[in-house]
Amino acid sequence: MMRSLRELGEDRLLAQILPQLKRNSRVVAGAGDDCAVVKFRGAKEWLLLKSDCVVEGIHFVAGSSARAIGWKAMMRGLSDFAAMSGVPQFALITLVIAGKKQVMWVRDLYRGLNQAARYFGVAVVGGETSDTDGPTAVVVSIAGFVEPDRCILRSGGKANDDIFVTGKLGGSIRRRHLNFVARIEEARWLTANFKVHAMMDLSDGLGVDLPRLAKASRLSFSVDQGALPVSRGCTVQQAISDGEDYELLFAISRRDRVRLERMWRRKFLKLELTRIGYLHQRSKIKHQTFLPGYVHFRRRR
Amino acid sequence: MMRSLRELGEDRLLAQILPQLKRNSRVVAGAGDDCAVVKFRGAKEWLLLKSDCVVEGIHFVAGSSARAIGWKAMMRGLSDFAAMSGVPQFALITLVIAGKKQVMWVRDLYRGLNQAARYFGVAVVGGETSDTDGPTAVVVSIAGFVEPDRCILRSGGKANDDIFVTGKLGGSIRRRHLNFVARIEEARWLTANFKVHAMMDLSDGLGVDLPRLAKASRLSFSVDQGALPVSRGCTVQQAISDGEDYELLFAISRRDRVRLERMWRRKFLKLELTRIGYLHQRSKIKHQTFLPGYVHFRRRR
Repeated sequence: MMRSLRELGEDRLLAQILPQLKRNSRVVAGAGDDCAVVKFRGAKEWLLLKSDCVVEGIHFVAGSSARAIGWKAMMRGLSDFAAMSGVPQFALITLVIAGKKQVMWVRDLYRGLNQAARYFGVAVVGGETSDTDGPTAVVVSIAGFVEPDRCILRSGGKANDDIFVTGKLGGSIRRRHLNFVARIEEARWLTANFKVHAMMDLSDGLGVDLPRLAKASRLSFSVDQGALPVSRGCTVQQAISDGEDYELLFAISRRDRVRLERMWRRKFLKLELTRIGYLHQRSKIKHQTFLPGYVHFRRRR
Repeated sequence: MMRSLRELGEDRLLAQILPQLKRNSRVVAGAGDDCAVVKFRGAKEWLLLKSDCVVEGIHFVAGSSARAIGWKAMMRGLSDFAAMSGVPQFALITLVIAGKKQVMWVRDLYRGLNQAARYFGVAVVGGETSDTDGPTAVVVSIAGFVEPDRCILRSGGKANDDIFVTGKLGGSIRRRHLNFVARIEEARWLTANFKVHAMMDLSDGLGVDLPRLAKASRLSFSVDQGALPVSRGCTVQQAISDGEDYELLFAISRRDRVRLERMWRRKFLKLELTRIGYLHQRSKIKHQTFLPGYVHFRRRR
């Protein structure tokens, strides 16, 4: 009972806390998916809510560009909207920062936050600042909507679904993690044209995130590691465990494979789409395990 | 240009950043009021959004009860809903905390967060945790609704309006700041029965908050300091500048005064309602100033 958070790990902490959380009939999907999905009085569309943070010393180093940190802080939350095929609309920014910090630095941070928001037409509608004696933390809360028939949870995967990922995996820490663009356009296109069964964004690495999707769908998975789209200069192991890819991972009927691949190539010329494996019943094959990706309270970046 | 945040102060920082923020026709009231007020597709009611944080060393000391910190973290955001006469429905919790912290402490924190949420029927629908090397920060984001004709901004005050406060002011730091109840029931009753012109919650102290309400309404104010409802054992100056009262401050037509005071006494037996002054045109009397209340990046608690 006297264990520390680091010994317990984030997933198990959440597993302990989540059952306590109060739910009600207005909640479609609560904690555990990329965004919370709730019903808003009188509206046809569902309300999506997401809160996410970046912390100095954990998600960025003290010397990073303030503008890039702001961009990343906003895009991380937007990436969770992509994961649900949601449309982000409003953002709140909470900044915990030492009073000795330069005003210029804070302005550049907001410039990055605003640029990322504007990229997807999101209005920054409020915020809060607090002093601290410690590292800077930027918390972004985003609200938006999704049509009920286009809301994709992690839990909808079906046995024999193909598993696809967008883009390339691994090596994000070298640069991409500070200037990526959330896959909102791609996700909205997918749900406008296909019946996607389950989807999430890759933030902690395929090795952590794919087991989460499979578990939420009560299935297991097989991955062809030779087929993984590995970033230039990275190993397969890095593609599995580096994290911060912010690509889409989704499950879709194998009957849609040919049409999906053909239409995708025409629509997104510069972005790869790769079938990396498939979902199957848990009993069929021994559960495939990866080396771990990034897990909070375990490894540090 | 090389000024620090502490030299600039929170109000002026926000004044510099807010004009940059992207707005659009879906935004009724953005940064600068207690909650953001936005329109949600197809809904009659407006969507209210608020994000707020408590930070170790600033809003609480390391030895405080985790349950009480959680209660306060949630109630602060709920108090902003009271300020708009809003109904809170959903909350997200972002926890920035060192991995070496005890799991028991975190469970107690969530217990407090949940108790405060449940008090007003709010569903905790998600959250995020991050490691840090520094002090603990708890960020609570709340979404809810308000009927357009019951949404009270800070800016609606009219010349000659009476200014009222609920409860007593000052000395909150001794105990009340960790176990207060947001004035949501009182605010909803007010807007169900009266045309309130402007309202906010007292978080930084009357001496800071009343000038904000007056300024938003483009008016000045006169306060009878002898009439202030001062907490037992406090001076008038403490009632003005201590902060963290979490009481309602509102402006209402003087024609409603007698009916309001009579109905209030019958409805809220144990809670004082005090007329402390009135709003007036800026030119009429020299702008009344208070000694400062609590301003972030200036004074520390």
